[in-house]
Amino acid sequence: MPRPSGRMPDQMRTVSFDRGVSKHAEGSCLVKFGDTHVLCTASLEERVPPWMRNSGRGWVTAEYGMLPRSTGDRMRREASSGKQGGRTLEIQRLIGRSMRAVVDLEALGERQITIDCDVIQADGGTRTAAITGGWVALHDCLDWMHQRQMASKTRILKDHIAAVSCGIFDGNPVTDLDYAEDSAAETDANFVMTGQGGIVEIQGTAEGAPFSREQFDALFEHARNTIAQLVDLQKQAIGA
Amino acid sequence: MPRPSGRMPDQMRTVSFDRGVSKHAEGSCLVKFGDTHVLCTASLEERVPPWMRNSGRGWVTAEYGMLPRSTGDRMRREASSGKQGGRTLEIQRLIGRSMRAVVDLEALGERQITIDCDVIQADGGTRTAAITGGWVALHDCLDWMHQRQMASKTRILKDHIAAVSCGIFDGNPVTDLDYAEDSAAETDANFVMTGQGGIVEIQGTAEGAPFSREQFDALFEHARNTIAQLVDLQKQAIGA
Amino acid sequence: MPRPSGRMPDQMRTVSFDRGVSKHAEGSCLVKFGDTHVLCTASLEERVPPWMRNSGRGWVTAEYGMLPRSTGDRMRREASSGKQGGRTLEIQRLIGRSMRAVVDLEALGERQITIDCDVIQADGGTRTAAITGGWVALHDCLDWMHQRQMASKTRILKDHIAAVSCGIFDGNPVTDLDYAEDSAAETDANFVMTGQGGIVEIQGTAEGAPFSREQFDALFEHARNTIAQLVDLQKQAIGA
Amino acid sequence: MPRPSGRMPDQMRTVSFDRGVSKHAEGSCLVKFGDTHVLCTASLEERVPPWMRNSGRGWVTAEYGMLPRSTGDRMRREASSGKQGGRTLEIQRLIGRSMRAVVDLEALGERQITIDCDVIQADGGTRTAAITGGWVALHDCLDWMHQRQMASKTRILKDHIAAVSCGIFDGNPVTDLDYAEDSAAETDANFVMTGQGGIVEIQGTAEGAPFSREQFDALFEHARNTIAQLVDLQKQAIGA
Amino acid sequence: MPRPSGRMPDQMRTVSFDRGVSKHAEGSCLVKFGDTHVLCTASLEERVPPWMRNSGRGWVTAEYGMLPRSTGDRMRREASSGKQGGRTLEIQRLIGRSMRAVVDLEALGERQITIDCDVIQADGGTRTAAITGGWVALHDCLDWMHQRQMASKTRILKDHIAAVSCGIFDGNPVTDLDYAEDSAAETDANFVMTGQGGIVEIQGTAEGAPFSREQFDALFEHARNTIAQLVDLQKQAIGA
Amino acid sequence: MPRPSGRMPDQMRTVSFDRGVSKHAEGSCLVKFGDTHVLCTASLEERVPPWMRNSGRGWVTAEYGMLPRSTGDRMRREASSGKQGGRTLEIQRLIGRSMRAVVDLEALGERQITIDCDVIQADGGTRTAAITGGWVALHDCLDWMHQRQMASKTRILKDHIAAVSCGIFDGNPVTDLDYAEDSAAETDANFVMTGQGGIVEIQGTAEGAPFSREQFDALFEHARNTIAQLVDLQKQAIGA
Repeated sequence: MPRPSGRMPDQMRTVSFDRGVSKHAEGSCLVKFGDTHVLCTASLEERVPPWMRNSGRGWVTAEYGMLPRSTGDRMRREASSGKQGGRTLEIQRLIGRSMRAVVDLEALGERQITIDCDVIQADGGTRTAAITGGWVALHDCLDWMHQRQMASKTRILKDHIAAVSCGIFDGNPVTDLDYAEDSAAETDANFVMTGQGGIVEIQGTAEGAPFSREQFDALFEHARNTIAQLVDLQKQAIGA
Repeated sequence: MPRPSGRMPDQMRTVSFDRGVSKHAEGSCLVKFGDTHVLCTASLEERVPPWMRNSGRGWVTAEYGMLPRSTGDRMRREASSGKQGGRTLEIQRLIGRSMRAVVDLEALGERQITIDCDVIQADGGTRTAAITGGWVALHDCLDWMHQRQMASKTRILKDHIAAVSCGIFDGNPVTDLDYAEDSAAETDANFVMTGQGGIVEIQGTAEGAPFSREQFDALFEHARNTIAQLVDLQKQAIGA
Repeated sequence: MPRPSGRMPDQMRTVSFDRGVSKHAEGSCLVKFGDTHVLCTASLEERVPPWMRNSGRGWVTAEYGMLPRSTGDRMRREASSGKQGGRTLEIQRLIGRSMRAVVDLEALGERQITIDCDVIQADGGTRTAAITGGWVALHDCLDWMHQRQMASKTRILKDHIAAVSCGIFDGNPVTDLDYAEDSAAETDANFVMTGQGGIVEIQGTAEGAPFSREQFDALFEHARNTIAQLVDLQKQAIGA
Repeated sequence: MPRPSGRMPDQMRTVSFDRGVSKHAEGSCLVKFGDTHVLCTASLEERVPPWMRNSGRGWVTAEYGMLPRSTGDRMRREASSGKQGGRTLEIQRLIGRSMRAVVDLEALGERQITIDCDVIQADGGTRTAAITGGWVALHDCLDWMHQRQMASKTRILKDHIAAVSCGIFDGNPVTDLDYAEDSAAETDANFVMTGQGGIVEIQGTAEGAPFSREQFDALFEHARNTIAQLVDLQKQAIGA
Repeated sequence: MPRPSGRMPDQMRTVSFDRGVSKHAEGSCLVKFGDTHVLCTASLEERVPPWMRNSGRGWVTAEYGMLPRSTGDRMRREASSGKQGGRTLEIQRLIGRSMRAVVDLEALGERQITIDCDVIQADGGTRTAAITGGWVALHDCLDWMHQRQMASKTRILKDHIAAVSCGIFDGNPVTDLDYAEDSAAETDANFVMTGQGGIVEIQGTAEGAPFSREQFDALFEHARNTIAQLVDLQKQAIGA
Repeated sequence: MPRPSGRMPDQMRTVSFDRGVSKHAEGSCLVKFGDTHVLCTASLEERVPPWMRNSGRGWVTAEYGMLPRSTGDRMRREASSGKQGGRTLEIQRLIGRSMRAVVDLEALGERQITIDCDVIQADGGTRTAAITGGWVALHDCLDWMHQRQMASKTRILKDHIAAVSCGIFDGNPVTDLDYAEDSAAETDANFVMTGQGGIVEIQGTAEGAPFSREQFDALFEHARNTIAQLVDLQKQAIGA
């Protein structure tokens, strides 16, 4: 059975980065993985959380949200329901950890950068798009600081970070699942890796039957290749 | 003193309506009043709130939110703080009442349409932009239903609705305040009117000194003229 | 059709101010607009909100609540439901803005006065009664400070403030709507004005059909006359 | 040392019941124990909590609140802080149990009566005043039903219920503590008893040193006598 | 009718104290009253609540919780429902007051000890078991401080504290109610007393018919005897 | 550098399962991985969540909590703070998914089993201990149903499930991290696998530097071996 999208197993969706979309934010990027659109902003504040004060180190954190009608059926607004759900908390913790993996918090100094990732339209893979686009917003925020001689971007930002979701669809390992594929996938795994190919996060989940070591290895290969392409696209986007 | 924007007192900002921006919503519109950008979606559900069941009538409601970095300083995410603030609740009640003023709820039948207005970028006048763009999303949702012969758009939608914020800036009445003007205005008034020129909502507030009847009348004239122009733009946008 | 209350269009309800009803509060007033009874207290605290510290200026704020059985059907207690609803937040913001419009916050000094308005019995117009009675409580609190030479009442309190709700009932503009009239009114507008006749807030809402400029003007005239009478009654009450 | 109030050890404060103070409630009573004033309303609803449906039995429950400035220092409004505190929950559970102790829930039928006790002004003993006045509101609600031939008051209401707070002040047992005495009391005990002298609730707490059996017995005697007087006053108030 | 447990009226359940069950806590005790098992830990912190700072005095507080399946039917987890219920708040306030009754807060110094009482398995009398076992955890925490010469246990801890629940079962006063007895009891009273026999708390509640003074006196005698036995068991447990 | 625990790299802690520790639960198990102690109960309810009604399928869910002093420093009680944190939600979602991976929900029928995992004492690896012990509680619950001929345990329970946390400590891959090792580990990965060796969940996180594919493979080997041993211990525990 071919992929619903007609893509080849190792073919990711069309990915684009639209930088500087926010008039206010120090860094911003509208990232698109096909029909998945995530607005990422990086906000700089000259303070850190209370538990980090006087540590000499900075902090990078993330928040994630979905617009109520970013999805096929309208979801309840989390601000209205009075709390962020477990999925939201899980995703924003993941984005934050991913960003911190490539930031030298001491070089950042006692400042906080918040990466807000708001899903404008969802079609699968929102968390991996958020990480990949969030990195561009983070980069541009550090660039903004660099230009103002507030800090050295090259010392703070150690590497690229990008992410992709792969899965076993109809028995075959495929890369960059869209919503139709994700819903039908037997296994779903998110990979977060650096520009150097280091692994930052792996999250693999059997949706139906358990998966084997061989299946996992195949997903891994797809992820490694796709992430290398995403890093190349990030480089083009920032003009590196 | 001239307006910070360099506009004439009766000159509104460049306004645009970008329809069909959402792959999922039955109606959607990205409305821009200058640098104020609001994404409006209309979501149809085949159910009404519990207190309306078996009434034979439908309901139109609205929700409003701001992305955390839509503003100059990052605001706390309402989903994270655990509740919607008073300003948010006040605005979404206003949007809902405005939409219902031009909808025949009996003709709609037992269905609910939710207008979500999410501020992507804020530069003053977000609530009036939301109402003006929300009407386009509502129209397109009704058009979607009309095309599927679910309901008669012409019977349900009785008129246009549009809104503008006017104020006394440096002693002079001006229309369509942007953020810089709004912050410095002595008086701020929001007007919501129909295509026929009927008044649906007036909210006038003295920020500093009380205002006079004459000043209010001058704001009213600005609002009447600007709203007429906004209605014309809505007509162009929907191809009417 | 005559008004349910049998009143003339320009006739307000019997209004009374009962001062000093609280043993503890620095200022207090039980205000009655017919069967609408609101207990207003003014509480002085020698501190301001965190965002105002070291500004040299004071603050006046308000809170509003309804006893669960102040209404025809028992309402759920907001303390029990875990949050204040949108209507409550909207009203207490309105009361606070109204009070601040006639207070010189610099002359007040770094202190906060909280006006609590608790509806003991509701029959329409609770927010306008709260503003009108809240002013008396505020006055008496400033008087209390004046007598103790803590501050100069005459420098702090710049003017009277009073409010009324007018509406179009059965096609005719009438003043000071009670609950029966308010429920049936096509249009409802709240006006907040100073003793000098300056306008502080206008909130007009079409409940059914949009209203015209002429109708709004008629409501305005009623409001101007009624508020002038309310200010006279305030003067009598405080013995001015 | 004499009591701050100058009262004799066995002398309660001046107690009054003002019936029918609410235009809307089926039963209502403003009860005063000296400067402690509590507004009690009884609200009838033709439904019971979910867990009682189809049981053929009714329910009586209570809610308790304090106006923010009923006390010497302004308290935070519980609706604003987002939850009812432990003290509030404890008191309203006590009031509810006390009322149910004298009601035949089967005779009541599948209905709920809610006793709302709102403290207008506090000077000690608010919970005991609330129980004593709440009974009058409950009685009047049942009378209202009786007159409409909805139910038999005499079958439903089995007895009077009244309450008082006693304590050891400066080594001596005294009855009906006011705030000044309560703050200084070594031991504080609330007693809830029926018109027949049956005990419904006893809550004794050592504030400082533990108390002895003899001290407790002395408090008990004061309570028995005071409650008998309160029941007599209830009888006068309802014209029994 | 004999007691369901087959016990004599004055016979308490088998009670045991298992000390030092927590690797981390400064003091801990797993207390068992028959099938009621409560894990009590005492946690020392070198800080006091904000309102006590710079008072030179310490604080002892308590928290209480039940594991969801400590009971016959699974209860909803309070962390999941978003708040502690009225019963929980009432019980933890009682435990805290009971502990403070035998602690010299000045001798403790500016520190806080928190007694956590978590019900592992419930079979009636959880609050009285928590108080009785909580005292052992408190003692061991003070002993831990004593051994480190941080404070003098003998100066701080003034006496034992223990508690029991008695009731009228099938017309007869019995001691230490288990769940089956508690559910069927007409009257239920909790007593908290010191090693010297001083009374700290009495909470008596008529579940059905009011109770008489004679019945209360009989419960009191049971409580006095049982608490004396519990104090002896505490002494054995701590090796005093 | 040797492991703080003195264990060999592939040596797990002493693991024990204590079954039937709860008088009330249909299945229960106190699982110990060294000093990490988790009480797991399985509660059967004859109903499913609303969104599953009339599906003919059952549901298995999990909740996770930590006693406040299960840790070195006392944590705030989640019931008191009013919500479950992101970590808690993440863990209980993981436990639920893991259990469902080995349950035939159709064979279960329209019933829900809730696995409560409460950490009595924490020393690292609480989530993996919870999964491993939770399976035993689940098994015993299904056995309880089997004995009552309510359902067929052998049809419902498809396999064992067990979990372990492995990490890179001081450059070396080691299995079953305790708290001291976990705090110092550069990389931490949780593996959940079935008795047949199928993979259900993989969660790998770089705490400091990114990790390599080779390191991940080494962790995988440790996990495979340790989980095989855990499954053998489960078999011994249930007498299979």
